[in-house]
Amino acid sequence: MEKPTLPKGTRDFGPSQMAKRQFIFNTIRSVFQKYGFQPLETPAMENLSTLTGKYGEEGDQLLFKILNSGDFLKEANKENLQTGNWKLVTGDISEKGLRYDLTVPFARYVVMNRHEITFPFKRYQIQPVWRADRPQKGRYREFYQCDADVVGTDSLICEAEIILMIKEVFNGLGITDYSIKINHRAILSGLAEICQASEKESSLFVAIDKLDKIGEEKVKEELRNRGFNDTSLTEVFDILNFKGTTAEKIKFASQKFSNSEAGKKGVSEFTQVLELLKSFNATEEHVEFDIALARGLSYYTGCIFEVKINNVSIGSVSGGGRYDNLTGVFGLPGVSGVGFSFGVDRLYDALEELKLFPQEAQISGKVLIAHFDAESKTYGLNILQQLRAHGIASEIYPDTVKIQKQLEYANKKMIPYVIVIGSEEVKSGVLAFKNMKTGEQQKLAVEEILTLVK
Amino acid sequence: MEKPTLPKGTRDFGPSQMAKRQFIFNTIRSVFQKYGFQPLETPAMENLSTLTGKYGEEGDQLLFKILNSGDFLKEANKENLQTGNWKLVTGDISEKGLRYDLTVPFARYVVMNRHEITFPFKRYQIQPVWRADRPQKGRYREFYQCDADVVGTDSLICEAEIILMIKEVFNGLGITDYSIKINHRAILSGLAEICQASEKESSLFVAIDKLDKIGEEKVKEELRNRGFNDTSLTEVFDILNFKGTTAEKIKFASQKFSNSEAGKKGVSEFTQVLELLKSFNATEEHVEFDIALARGLSYYTGCIFEVKINNVSIGSVSGGGRYDNLTGVFGLPGVSGVGFSFGVDRLYDALEELKLFPQEAQISGKVLIAHFDAESKTYGLNILQQLRAHGIASEIYPDTVKIQKQLEYANKKMIPYVIVIGSEEVKSGVLAFKNMKTGEQQKLAVEEILTLVK
Repeated sequence: MEKPTLPKGTRDFGPSQMAKRQFIFNTIRSVFQKYGFQPLETPAMENLSTLTGKYGEEGDQLLFKILNSGDFLKEANKENLQTGNWKLVTGDISEKGLRYDLTVPFARYVVMNRHEITFPFKRYQIQPVWRADRPQKGRYREFYQCDADVVGTDSLICEAEIILMIKEVFNGLGITDYSIKINHRAILSGLAEICQASEKESSLFVAIDKLDKIGEEKVKEELRNRGFNDTSLTEVFDILNFKGTTAEKIKFASQKFSNSEAGKKGVSEFTQVLELLKSFNATEEHVEFDIALARGLSYYTGCIFEVKINNVSIGSVSGGGRYDNLTGVFGLPGVSGVGFSFGVDRLYDALEELKLFPQEAQISGKVLIAHFDAESKTYGLNILQQLRAHGIASEIYPDTVKIQKQLEYANKKMIPYVIVIGSEEVKSGVLAFKNMKTGEQQKLAVEEILTLVK
Repeated sequence: MEKPTLPKGTRDFGPSQMAKRQFIFNTIRSVFQKYGFQPLETPAMENLSTLTGKYGEEGDQLLFKILNSGDFLKEANKENLQTGNWKLVTGDISEKGLRYDLTVPFARYVVMNRHEITFPFKRYQIQPVWRADRPQKGRYREFYQCDADVVGTDSLICEAEIILMIKEVFNGLGITDYSIKINHRAILSGLAEICQASEKESSLFVAIDKLDKIGEEKVKEELRNRGFNDTSLTEVFDILNFKGTTAEKIKFASQKFSNSEAGKKGVSEFTQVLELLKSFNATEEHVEFDIALARGLSYYTGCIFEVKINNVSIGSVSGGGRYDNLTGVFGLPGVSGVGFSFGVDRLYDALEELKLFPQEAQISGKVLIAHFDAESKTYGLNILQQLRAHGIASEIYPDTVKIQKQLEYANKKMIPYVIVIGSEEVKSGVLAFKNMKTGEQQKLAVEEILTLVK
């Protein structure tokens, strides 16, 4: 018989990984809730009509499609089947796909429930998504996203609160060395205006976005090939290369954008967000004004965020921004908002790399009851019942085996205390209570153990 | 533009449903953990070779299959495509499917990780499963299961603990009127022996299983058609119809099974489970010995459980049993264990029907900060920051709109307290603190509000 395997790019999460993942999920969830966000969950499957065309052509190819139930060939065009035109056949034999992100299902939900929703609507969503990508380090075919969005308001308070939430999550996770990079779509437009490239905005942004990866010279080369002249490039890189504090950057950008309405608007909104942080009694620590930040520009229209953990292999763990038109594609225009997302799997890898997980990150009972024989096992059930009645997670070794084996079980499950019961203990009611970390053993009554463990 | 819809049989869970569902999940999870079970999560997708053939032919038809990525037709047999032989084509164009239950993925996990797992292995798993069933009331195409299993021990303590966990979960949910029906596979075998039907065991069990639904006469008719004679039927229904306390039922069954090894074994194990309950200081309350219980017999080999909530439309919300050979189908024989499962969607419907959800089952902040103008809004950010620093979930209305609209927002989100800030409050630092339930309003300093809300 063939040994069972997992589909490529997917993973099981056993007890110790689950404990670490729940630590991350709980930290993020409690911050979201503290800031007034409410949970939403949508189905794993969506109609392909909902998903297709939202992620570009490449995205469409990465959707996992579900075969129609029953005789799916009945509806399929015979000619396409014969000529092997699989792209056309797909539409005939599949009408559902797996969720590719949490934004499109959220937009669909808002449209379908717009009459019941209380706006501004602050929702968070923590669910897996699926992409038929080529698996590689840090890239999986099933992975979790944790999104929080506010729709139905233009208030920059939301942007400031996103910064505060990121800080609070990182504080909860114990991550100290990171940058919250911020830019504004209008600043990028200002940049394009300065070099008279408003017509070629997207070429400019796509090239700039690669600065980190390919370096200045290659970006310049790419832009030259796209028709940018040297004067323009000098202008652009003067701005991109400017070094200084945030205040200095703002001053510099304001001068540069003095003739660009877009540029001025972008700098002004970014400045307002910083002002709001002050009103929240929060500092600018970790916040970095990054004019070269140009991610997912297709639908962002205001502030853009990206969070990078320093000194780890895959540091980009969160991002987001403001959009003007979340639901237009579903026939409901004018729903604006701002949101961001944590990538749990990357956070997990970063926390492992930084050794930030608490060592005892196992979800286990606190006490194991071990026993020498059938009689002491029966006696142990009563003790066990008392521990649980006091809310103490605990268990009894179910079989009568050597004590050594029972202690090993406790060790492997990282159960910190073991109560060992033999005929002596049954008679006296005084129990042997063993601390598995120190190896120390005491003789205690049940009541003393209850107090000690609680 | 067409309005977006949800795939048939799937649902969104908005904020108020999520609050109720999290109440159920948290109750179940905390009981599982209190009893020493550890979490496991497996991927939504499994290889079809893992899933197929495990749920009978009907089950195979209900699997959601995922279309291979890229040119899936390349590998497909041309002849089958032309003749429309969709069953054969399926194997060519799809190699993955969605999880149909949590048991098969668990078995696969145990086999793949048998060298790392600490046995006895107590795992719980709370995840959605997918079935291409015809949707109807109480039956969805995506629904959650909450499973807990112990593998690697034959100890009947596990059975007793399943009863205790069910009681504790129901206690936590506030459900009081329910029965935990228990039977034993060997008792059913004993029943077959008594009427010399050991060769036709499964016909007998399938028919008995319908007693609740179609009644005694129809079951008898079905059995007569399958060759059972009247003497046998009288014997069987003598036992099935016996009324009495559990002790009386045990006594009666012991007499009836005095010549059946299987029957005696079944009664003895059931009796031992009751004895263990006593050692746990627990009563037999809610436990019902039901010889007619015969569910999912394909792999159960010991005790069988089914839990029914009384006086609701769909009362069967949990079930399980002991099995001898969980992983044999994946080439690893001899892994025995016992497990059970809660159906969250049915529990949800039952709790709604019984009106047992706490009225304020919304996950919201505790305080909304409302404001009259820009200045008081800015002032409010500082107050908000103080609330959150004390761990109080809270939010500020992000836009400057009429107070009435801000209060409505709090009402709809079920936020219990509102702090109203105007120029007066900014000057004095004494804030208007409104209880949204009673309508009562007080003038308080921030410190007083912090103490009051915490």
